[in-house]
Amino acid sequence: MDDQLSHVRADGSAHMVDVTEKATTSRTSRAQAVVVTRSEVIEMIMAGGLPKGDALPVARVAGIMAAKKTWETIPLCHPIPLGKITVDFKSDTGAGTVRVEALVKTTGVTGVEMEALSAASTAALTLYDMIKAVDPRAAITDIKVLEKTGGKSGDWSLEDPGAQS
Amino acid sequence: MDDQLSHVRADGSAHMVDVTEKATTSRTSRAQAVVVTRSEVIEMIMAGGLPKGDALPVARVAGIMAAKKTWETIPLCHPIPLGKITVDFKSDTGAGTVRVEALVKTTGVTGVEMEALSAASTAALTLYDMIKAVDPRAAITDIKVLEKTGGKSGDWSLEDPGAQS
Amino acid sequence: MDDQLSHVRADGSAHMVDVTEKATTSRTSRAQAVVVTRSEVIEMIMAGGLPKGDALPVARVAGIMAAKKTWETIPLCHPIPLGKITVDFKSDTGAGTVRVEALVKTTGVTGVEMEALSAASTAALTLYDMIKAVDPRAAITDIKVLEKTGGKSGDWSLEDPGAQS
Amino acid sequence: MDDQLSHVRADGSAHMVDVTEKATTSRTSRAQAVVVTRSEVIEMIMAGGLPKGDALPVARVAGIMAAKKTWETIPLCHPIPLGKITVDFKSDTGAGTVRVEALVKTTGVTGVEMEALSAASTAALTLYDMIKAVDPRAAITDIKVLEKTGGKSGDWSLEDPGAQS
Amino acid sequence: MDDQLSHVRADGSAHMVDVTEKATTSRTSRAQAVVVTRSEVIEMIMAGGLPKGDALPVARVAGIMAAKKTWETIPLCHPIPLGKITVDFKSDTGAGTVRVEALVKTTGVTGVEMEALSAASTAALTLYDMIKAVDPRAAITDIKVLEKTGGKSGDWSLEDPGAQS
Amino acid sequence: MDDQLSHVRADGSAHMVDVTEKATTSRTSRAQAVVVTRSEVIEMIMAGGLPKGDALPVARVAGIMAAKKTWETIPLCHPIPLGKITVDFKSDTGAGTVRVEALVKTTGVTGVEMEALSAASTAALTLYDMIKAVDPRAAITDIKVLEKTGGKSGDWSLEDPGAQS
Repeated sequence: MDDQLSHVRADGSAHMVDVTEKATTSRTSRAQAVVVTRSEVIEMIMAGGLPKGDALPVARVAGIMAAKKTWETIPLCHPIPLGKITVDFKSDTGAGTVRVEALVKTTGVTGVEMEALSAASTAALTLYDMIKAVDPRAAITDIKVLEKTGGKSGDWSLEDPGAQS
Repeated sequence: MDDQLSHVRADGSAHMVDVTEKATTSRTSRAQAVVVTRSEVIEMIMAGGLPKGDALPVARVAGIMAAKKTWETIPLCHPIPLGKITVDFKSDTGAGTVRVEALVKTTGVTGVEMEALSAASTAALTLYDMIKAVDPRAAITDIKVLEKTGGKSGDWSLEDPGAQS
Repeated sequence: MDDQLSHVRADGSAHMVDVTEKATTSRTSRAQAVVVTRSEVIEMIMAGGLPKGDALPVARVAGIMAAKKTWETIPLCHPIPLGKITVDFKSDTGAGTVRVEALVKTTGVTGVEMEALSAASTAALTLYDMIKAVDPRAAITDIKVLEKTGGKSGDWSLEDPGAQS
Repeated sequence: MDDQLSHVRADGSAHMVDVTEKATTSRTSRAQAVVVTRSEVIEMIMAGGLPKGDALPVARVAGIMAAKKTWETIPLCHPIPLGKITVDFKSDTGAGTVRVEALVKTTGVTGVEMEALSAASTAALTLYDMIKAVDPRAAITDIKVLEKTGGKSGDWSLEDPGAQS
Repeated sequence: MDDQLSHVRADGSAHMVDVTEKATTSRTSRAQAVVVTRSEVIEMIMAGGLPKGDALPVARVAGIMAAKKTWETIPLCHPIPLGKITVDFKSDTGAGTVRVEALVKTTGVTGVEMEALSAASTAALTLYDMIKAVDPRAAITDIKVLEKTGGKSGDWSLEDPGAQS
Repeated sequence: MDDQLSHVRADGSAHMVDVTEKATTSRTSRAQAVVVTRSEVIEMIMAGGLPKGDALPVARVAGIMAAKKTWETIPLCHPIPLGKITVDFKSDTGAGTVRVEALVKTTGVTGVEMEALSAASTAALTLYDMIKAVDPRAAITDIKVLEKTGGKSGDWSLEDPGAQS
């Protein structure tokens, strides 16, 4: 952490940190977001019966495209090449939830946590957009990074509490 | 709700629904997102001591800019003029949280829930980007619309459970 | 036509023409693009068996999003509000073709031909992207406006050769 | 082809395929699009006498800029560095056509067919935008890749039917 | 001025100010930017003899496109419809300068000064990009609004020092 | 210079030049822009008392984001990875000026002068946007590259007149 904090500028001003000396390595990140709605709305999503149409394919494309635009949306993120992006959905009708999971892979100089988070959260927002006519009180929760591999800080996963952060 | 569901197409395919017949009225939406981290990280945010610099002004700008690009990020949203956007932060050092609240106002033909949600969630993601060097396990929760005024479906707020949805 | 040509500047330089005096009216445009490939590729599209996944929903979303960005892609197009966008596909396995048809509707000061053409051509390019691993020699043809309503120049359709152009 | 099809996911869902293991090599692609209008319109294009101004330089810039944004427009395209982009026009007054040819070159991990096609088709759409006041029934045809070099699938050109596809 | 300052928030935080109550009126703005280089570079610009090609048409298109993206580039600008954009150049070979003048017109709720300034400065930056191989020490000066019409603050022009500001 | 001019095409048409053969090296560029206003406006900037809020953090973020979008704004610029971006301000209350200085660093095949210039000029335009309610006649001057390192043309700085250009 000491090393990372060396990026702080004397006046505390925001800046895009220097990554030109970092190693180009294979890196992945998995992140999630959870849409919380009602059981019957999950059924409408699965049946393709929503006002704006079949929701999951639209949310998937939105998530993939958002991952690629992360450097444009998050002010201090670096533009990096992205080698693989997947966005998957797991619905639980009883609980009234859809869990979005995004996986991003790169060969680059920075991690891809922000890209995975952007993909998951944008896919979830897109689902909200498509269900809000039937459930405007739906919410999105538990947006977080699940796992990270590659890079100097080492691999870790939320499921493995002993790993280094 | 019946009327809204009339947008469903015979084949269930996704589309941007027709809003050309909707009335141009004054509309507002308030939405939130909550960043959950540790107490000492909140202190670093408040002291401007994070590796990438002073976090709140960057997150505020990111949120405002994201609201304006909602139609570009969320596939089936309509481009509409936006008349006012604010993004505010309320931190709770003891709880280790920062609540982001976004307010968007328009004179237009659609509501601005998605714009307010985009502002709040992007500001929260930007905060995560700036604290992830010190807390990669931070999460974002409780993204939801708090209140909506204007439009045919009537005013409502989450705090007022009796209101129409 | 004389009136329209009054936009020409003395030095012939390109410019975005003045539309501030034009009437805000309801306008629609329908346009198409045709992807020409092989019969077995059409079967793969229909079966969702392509390397990059289920093609039609991705192409539909790409077309809708492209329509909204027309003013950004085509240098002299005006940004206008769009009220409805649909993108549909009609495949002919025997002929080895997929016809993309886009419909765009606005209440605005300019026609939406370019938006409909952008939607149709981008959806077709997206289909090519998804089939090029199995047919790199596929082509896109017959991109054209099929019908236009609203605006000073009057309604016309390609199918009705007697209409005013 | 077998190898390429290994990208298909079990559920057929769309995704951005993994290119992190692919070799970084020099790659080029040439593509075309043909605008079909009337002889006198070609003369107006050549004389710089169109309502919106001198058309070819505008279309050329639009094509070059579109090539750079291909990863943003086509959902499953990878962002890659582009090293050279040219857009050229060959008009045939008698036939009433303008053929647009785009050449894109990269040192990267994927081919640049989509970038060349985006450049050619966007330049053609821009020409349509500039002539539609005088010929709204103009069309765009024969959008296709003419030649590709570099990459695992080998070099090929449409003019050389014996080449591998 | 008092009235305008009423936008200041208690905590001084940045925000996009409320324009929903402002009148929709016809507004124009003219702005300029001046590129300062050497006489022989001006001659190369005029002769179309620069390494990257004919510079003025490219700079014109860049300026027009930048005006349309002002709301995206300048964080607190409002997205508004633009009705007319022109970008013109006046070169002075002896002085080694090119003056860029941009005119933007709208029927909207805010002025278009930022749009005119974005057009002029981006066109000037594009010229620099095209001449930097032959004059890396060229500069851009005197970027300013020349004239404004429409809106509550009244018409004014830099050339008319008696006008209200 | 001779070598650079070899990029000129026979017909003088604009194009994005080939950089695929150029060496990937560490490169930096520093550029500036100067906002010229009145002393009391400088005091308002420093006190955070402007109508739209605290100006410098917003201008800093705008500059950093603009640097990353240079390839999108300047038609013939190449998209390249950026490794570090800083934007700093030096105000002179007596002179009524704010000097913006941007530094950009990359490991890439082209220089980053345009990125540094875009950052500095966009930050300056953003300042103008935030002060124009109190000084619409403010101007931006002296936009120029201050220093460049890396690349075939060698290092140089404006302060060192003996250096190679």
